[in-house]
Amino acid sequence: MAPYQIAVVVGSLRHDSYNRKLANAVVKLAPADFSFKQIQIGDLPLYNQDDDANQAESVKRLKNEITSAHGLLFVTPEYNRSIPGVLKNAIDHASRPNGQNAWAGKPAGVLGATPGTSGTAMAQQHLRNVLVAVDVLTLAQPEAFTQIKEGLFDEQGNIGPGSKKFFQNWMDRYVAWVKKHAG
Amino acid sequence: MAPYQIAVVVGSLRHDSYNRKLANAVVKLAPADFSFKQIQIGDLPLYNQDDDANQAESVKRLKNEITSAHGLLFVTPEYNRSIPGVLKNAIDHASRPNGQNAWAGKPAGVLGATPGTSGTAMAQQHLRNVLVAVDVLTLAQPEAFTQIKEGLFDEQGNIGPGSKKFFQNWMDRYVAWVKKHAG
Repeated sequence: MAPYQIAVVVGSLRHDSYNRKLANAVVKLAPADFSFKQIQIGDLPLYNQDDDANQAESVKRLKNEITSAHGLLFVTPEYNRSIPGVLKNAIDHASRPNGQNAWAGKPAGVLGATPGTSGTAMAQQHLRNVLVAVDVLTLAQPEAFTQIKEGLFDEQGNIGPGSKKFFQNWMDRYVAWVKKHAG
Repeated sequence: MAPYQIAVVVGSLRHDSYNRKLANAVVKLAPADFSFKQIQIGDLPLYNQDDDANQAESVKRLKNEITSAHGLLFVTPEYNRSIPGVLKNAIDHASRPNGQNAWAGKPAGVLGATPGTSGTAMAQQHLRNVLVAVDVLTLAQPEAFTQIKEGLFDEQGNIGPGSKKFFQNWMDRYVAWVKKHAG
């Protein structure tokens, strides 16, 4: 097992999500001592504080996957100038109950792609606000406000040549960040 | 039936939610030509764009309730410096599919209560960002960053004497705003 296990949280449930493709492509740029696993958020219930003492099995699984990871990678679409409710619901669940926040102290990176670049910028800023609240240590620069366009991916689903240098640099910074803060 | 029907959206699913109590108390300050109904968001599925062409019955109901209302009232807790995922999920659902956004053009007010006042302020700012995206016409001032404290409600669940003048003024401004923009 690779020394650094990363839990990848994709904000969209759509099967052909561009952000899932982006996640799949970017993780190929990581070194051999990193492995990545997308964690499931689509089977969580809607968060209700009344259930804090009796969390659903899917919530327990989510929290275990976060707790056992060395780092986090959020890759999210923008819905209505913010993150999807689906993603926020997952963050809310794993932050609870009070004092048992699974996110705390984990190093993380934030990525996102939208048809323009302002959409993902606004969504990522909201996400960063929320991640501060749950004590996630989020990589600052380079920010990555990715535009979905022809050539972003090659035919094998890798990052295309025009963006490869940018994302390789992003990944190198991310890897160093995780190593510095993991465990 | 009162001439002005308002759809109330409470961001918490908790049974004894302070924000639900706040909603119930504030609507009592409205004039007789306004009636208020809390709309259900706790039975919605997690939003998935793949279902846009085949929205769940609960989503159709939500959209019908919004469409038939003359105005909206959002009363939300703060979770992790933003709105609950549960509320964002409802906003995402009713904004879709593209071109069939049920929120568009509806006048609205935003309220919220937290143990301090900075929490609800941050949550309400995120909510206002999102409401711009879905073309909701949100009352600007007075902003209401309400602190949950002894005396906020009286024993009958009305707004207590210390806050009554503030909320009556808020309601008067809200009523004028809805009348100006409804239909």
